[in-house]
Amino acid sequence: MKRLFMQEVATRDGFQNEKTFIDTGDKIALINALSLCGYAKIEVTSFTSPKAIPALRDAEAVMAGIHRQPGVEYTVLVPNVRGAERALGCGIDEANLVMSVSEPHNRSNLRMTREQSFAQLKEVVGVIGQGPVAINVSLSTVFGCPMQGDVPAGEVLNWVERFADLGVRGITLCDTTGMAFPSQVEALSRQVRERFPHLQTTLHFHNTRGMALANTLAALQAGVDRFDASLGGLGGCPYAPGASGNVCMEDLVHMLDLMGYDTGMDLARVLAASATLPGLIGHDTPSAILKAGRRLDLHPIPEHVHTLSKQVANPELERTR
Amino acid sequence: MKRLFMQEVATRDGFQNEKTFIDTGDKIALINALSLCGYAKIEVTSFTSPKAIPALRDAEAVMAGIHRQPGVEYTVLVPNVRGAERALGCGIDEANLVMSVSEPHNRSNLRMTREQSFAQLKEVVGVIGQGPVAINVSLSTVFGCPMQGDVPAGEVLNWVERFADLGVRGITLCDTTGMAFPSQVEALSRQVRERFPHLQTTLHFHNTRGMALANTLAALQAGVDRFDASLGGLGGCPYAPGASGNVCMEDLVHMLDLMGYDTGMDLARVLAASATLPGLIGHDTPSAILKAGRRLDLHPIPEHVHTLSKQVANPELERTR
Repeated sequence: MKRLFMQEVATRDGFQNEKTFIDTGDKIALINALSLCGYAKIEVTSFTSPKAIPALRDAEAVMAGIHRQPGVEYTVLVPNVRGAERALGCGIDEANLVMSVSEPHNRSNLRMTREQSFAQLKEVVGVIGQGPVAINVSLSTVFGCPMQGDVPAGEVLNWVERFADLGVRGITLCDTTGMAFPSQVEALSRQVRERFPHLQTTLHFHNTRGMALANTLAALQAGVDRFDASLGGLGGCPYAPGASGNVCMEDLVHMLDLMGYDTGMDLARVLAASATLPGLIGHDTPSAILKAGRRLDLHPIPEHVHTLSKQVANPELERTR
Repeated sequence: MKRLFMQEVATRDGFQNEKTFIDTGDKIALINALSLCGYAKIEVTSFTSPKAIPALRDAEAVMAGIHRQPGVEYTVLVPNVRGAERALGCGIDEANLVMSVSEPHNRSNLRMTREQSFAQLKEVVGVIGQGPVAINVSLSTVFGCPMQGDVPAGEVLNWVERFADLGVRGITLCDTTGMAFPSQVEALSRQVRERFPHLQTTLHFHNTRGMALANTLAALQAGVDRFDASLGGLGGCPYAPGASGNVCMEDLVHMLDLMGYDTGMDLARVLAASATLPGLIGHDTPSAILKAGRRLDLHPIPEHVHTLSKQVANPELERTR
């Protein structure tokens, strides 16, 4: 039973993409429910400018309102020094910094060059310092950029190294728009783990092209033990309207549990929390397990089966195989 | 570049689950388009009673109307001796026989006991004989039954053996309602291939719980080289309204091509054929690649990125990671 570590991103990465504002009280209630599910980490919110991302304008109130469970780390997105100062005032466990390894994606998404982003994030690392607050860096588009195409592995490794040299605890390899495929995931994960064995390495998959769970298998082959995912699969893909975004947490945990991994997760609680999402966001989610049930959530045997011996068999009917 | 063999099931397994009748001419045109895509096999239709499955009541007309491509095998579902006689009259390449390894599922789905099904299919094998028409047997629920739960591997292997003893060419292990998970798939595939190395072994996955592509990876690990899938992911799951059914052909081929397998498929043609489906069936399909595009179908760089050097960078904006 290998131990895996699950990290929830729905209340940040998911909610930030929703058109409707989720009430602060609802956010707090959801995070409190998630805190009892067995997560290693919950990305609570983002300390971005309220003007840039109004959906998360209540970051301080949410952080102040949640009940923290021992053993769960509460992390937040921090874009810059101002955000770091706000976040530190809230007693965060970890700051999650973000930049893209693709120049056009970083410019498009963060409206800076990669070097400007790095300089700004280096400042943030300086402000947070070597105190009790850990630092993680999420690198976007490491498996491909929707504008540039493939980003060379050497370039990705170079960015990992620059942040490792700043002393950050962890790095997240983000498949921002679902371009990763299994053999690529295994190769890059292996390179990162071999070259940076002391970094806490997280894989962050999107299911845009249906490969997120297959990519997870490939990452497991490379020894990765830490995964981001989003309750209900919340968070779409800006480049493909209607397509899936973040891999769905309950679908991922369902598979990993079946394979005998120790995720530490209480899937029933995760499903109960996921079932509340449509009420909060006003639409359905792409969760497969919420629709189909867990594999051993059995169905009743139809009545005609019990009385079959008394009937003439009808060899013509055939509905599914 | 390991050669893999792709088998299309949309016009049988998919269309049989549609509420609207697809015109015979449309079926023929679609199959003709599919014949140019590089498939090893196309399951054209079913010679079931037209009363039981009216959606496929035009089986003879479809078989008579299609242009057959050399190198593509045209297979049909054959439930009984009457169906076999009809199918043989149409010059099929292969007959695909179906039964379930789960007693309640076979009773529910085929309205017979498994022994009654086996006796009937044995008669079919006798009628088809050792001539030029090959025989495949699709075994349903080998990775779990939605009513019974797990079906012991020993029982599955026993059914494979009974059909192998009848001299059939191939066996398909069907994950009828998406209950398969990767470690289980790898173990059972390995056992079947080791015990029956001369059988043509196909894996047939449903994506009901999101695991179809992950299960494909597991089957590849066990040396499986032949896969069923359905254009556009056509064919739902009767036990979970709204859930996915058959794994989507273009999503599967997209992943396998990226991993360097030689599927023999022309993905652009597959996507063009898939794009015609909503017009035929009157609703959207669960195809991911049709929505999101192939991973290297790139997007234009937004205008603001080109003019960025002239602007003051806005470090607050952050939309995706």
